[in-house]
Amino acid sequence: MSEEYLQHEIHEQPTVLQDMLDREDNAIERLADAIRERQIEHVLIAARGTSGNAGIYARYLLGMVNGLPVELAAPSMYTLYQSPPRLRNTLVLGISQSGMSPDIVAVMEDGQAQGMLTAAITNAPDSRMGQIAEHVIPLGAGEERSVAATKSYTTELLALALLSAALAQDAEMRQALQRVPEAVVNALSLEEIIGRRAERYHYMEQCAVISRGYNYATALEIALKLKELTYTSTTPYSAADFMHGPIAVVRPGYPVMVIATAGVAQPVLSELVDELVAREAELLIIGDDATLTQHASLPLRLPMPLPEWLSPIVAVVPGQLLGYHLALARGLDPDRPRGLNKVTETH
Amino acid sequence: MSEEYLQHEIHEQPTVLQDMLDREDNAIERLADAIRERQIEHVLIAARGTSGNAGIYARYLLGMVNGLPVELAAPSMYTLYQSPPRLRNTLVLGISQSGMSPDIVAVMEDGQAQGMLTAAITNAPDSRMGQIAEHVIPLGAGEERSVAATKSYTTELLALALLSAALAQDAEMRQALQRVPEAVVNALSLEEIIGRRAERYHYMEQCAVISRGYNYATALEIALKLKELTYTSTTPYSAADFMHGPIAVVRPGYPVMVIATAGVAQPVLSELVDELVAREAELLIIGDDATLTQHASLPLRLPMPLPEWLSPIVAVVPGQLLGYHLALARGLDPDRPRGLNKVTETH
Repeated sequence: MSEEYLQHEIHEQPTVLQDMLDREDNAIERLADAIRERQIEHVLIAARGTSGNAGIYARYLLGMVNGLPVELAAPSMYTLYQSPPRLRNTLVLGISQSGMSPDIVAVMEDGQAQGMLTAAITNAPDSRMGQIAEHVIPLGAGEERSVAATKSYTTELLALALLSAALAQDAEMRQALQRVPEAVVNALSLEEIIGRRAERYHYMEQCAVISRGYNYATALEIALKLKELTYTSTTPYSAADFMHGPIAVVRPGYPVMVIATAGVAQPVLSELVDELVAREAELLIIGDDATLTQHASLPLRLPMPLPEWLSPIVAVVPGQLLGYHLALARGLDPDRPRGLNKVTETH
Repeated sequence: MSEEYLQHEIHEQPTVLQDMLDREDNAIERLADAIRERQIEHVLIAARGTSGNAGIYARYLLGMVNGLPVELAAPSMYTLYQSPPRLRNTLVLGISQSGMSPDIVAVMEDGQAQGMLTAAITNAPDSRMGQIAEHVIPLGAGEERSVAATKSYTTELLALALLSAALAQDAEMRQALQRVPEAVVNALSLEEIIGRRAERYHYMEQCAVISRGYNYATALEIALKLKELTYTSTTPYSAADFMHGPIAVVRPGYPVMVIATAGVAQPVLSELVDELVAREAELLIIGDDATLTQHASLPLRLPMPLPEWLSPIVAVVPGQLLGYHLALARGLDPDRPRGLNKVTETH
């Protein structure tokens, strides 16, 4: 095989995203109906790792567009300590590629035992998680063979975006969703510059990855990809938390990636970029505004902007590509990071 | 002045903790009564940085001991986006040393506008946050002059622990609380070994800091102290999240701090230590069990164990001391980290 699974799966994303948009089955509409009928007032998300980052996206999206407070479950309360909090009018929403992580399943089982509405967003509808959930949203992303999740992440985000639009019953949102696959095709064109410039970061040992609002999830996910694929000690931050202390680590040449697409969060991220320029940081910028990305040593300008609420689906793509090409530049196997399994059986 | 503010404030902790226990004013009991009377079902915490780490402690403590689901507010929803979620039967609890951070105040103001119960845990009862809140729990920690927060953090934890005991109306919990100041005195005795061994970490550029359950908050807070005070690129993890990917970064000699005190989380953390020993990581271990700490290059055994739910108040202390002594070893000013202000005015 000449191509790694990872590169193949990164490039499959427009297709699997389009497949989800084209799906006839209306599982997401049925879940939205149930959320209304059951008078859901809270969402508790059970997820870890990459799917946990999709949960962070859900927190902003369902919170701001749909007015639903979203909390991410701390699974140890359910497994180790077996002292779950009391739930009321809550949707317990599991997000997991494999549907097999025992601690995520434990949160779902508790939700069921407490009589809550349960739903699973998963690539494995027949998994234990899929069996427990009243509502199952299949990702339909096809088998994901690389340990580092890519297409399962962007399809998880799209499923959440479709759910938000279904809850809002908003025609403009539904229209915007149709542009996602093409925007991802466009983002994939950044592979040329990323492949050419990856060597610059061969010896990078640490990196901060920063955004705010909707793309905070993107910062978390890109930091995780760079860690898994390249063993770089990357740390994600919201711009506000970063200014509250960690900015102290920035010395001249310190690498910082900023994700700043058009929207409400852009002005504050633009201020942060100015501050980082003043501190002579090495900047990697993912965004759709050339006046902002021009400050970067590695400017990654997304050719086709999306509305801010959808931008995380496309903004993560250059980060996935950087993880892949930096792994190659370092002579690492992008499909099998050392010491990782596809399904982590944490309890 | 021969002694830095920071060292002084670290050593003040037993006194200010004892002061809080001795306080006659029953603000915490009144808040517990209000939580019962107003039939509070959810807690929304507004906090950032060190106080945000106290919020993580609250999430485990109020969730597991008192059955209350706790969510940490994403302040940008309230400030930048101005699209807060709908709240019901919720306590909006601000935690802030200064009570001045505009984004935290915005979350409190929204809670008030939505008719929710509001409370503030703060060192500045006269601040804007203190003025808004129906219930104010003063830290009474005295002025904190070092930029890196220490005594305000441990008093925030104690205030939360007192609130949890008041809600539970549990005599055993109240008794255990009385042992906190002495346990902190004992933990301060670790300064001798820390001062002697800090030089070993002079050139440490990165470090993972790991725990699980109650002490996940401790991992977050120690990572923040090391970042602020020593500019080390530290990244905190829950043990479960770490196993889900980031463990890939561990090569022989890679520094990992593990916080593992006696209790429910200890066995899984002990398994993690075995795995890290197999990977030949450089281990720094904070714990109260000598068979566990013996695996460490820097064993930091707490002389006086506390019940697991109180252990975060004492387990953070060796991390504060390491931050201070490593700053000194590196010739840095522990009171004024570069580019930080005591109050960060994020919006």
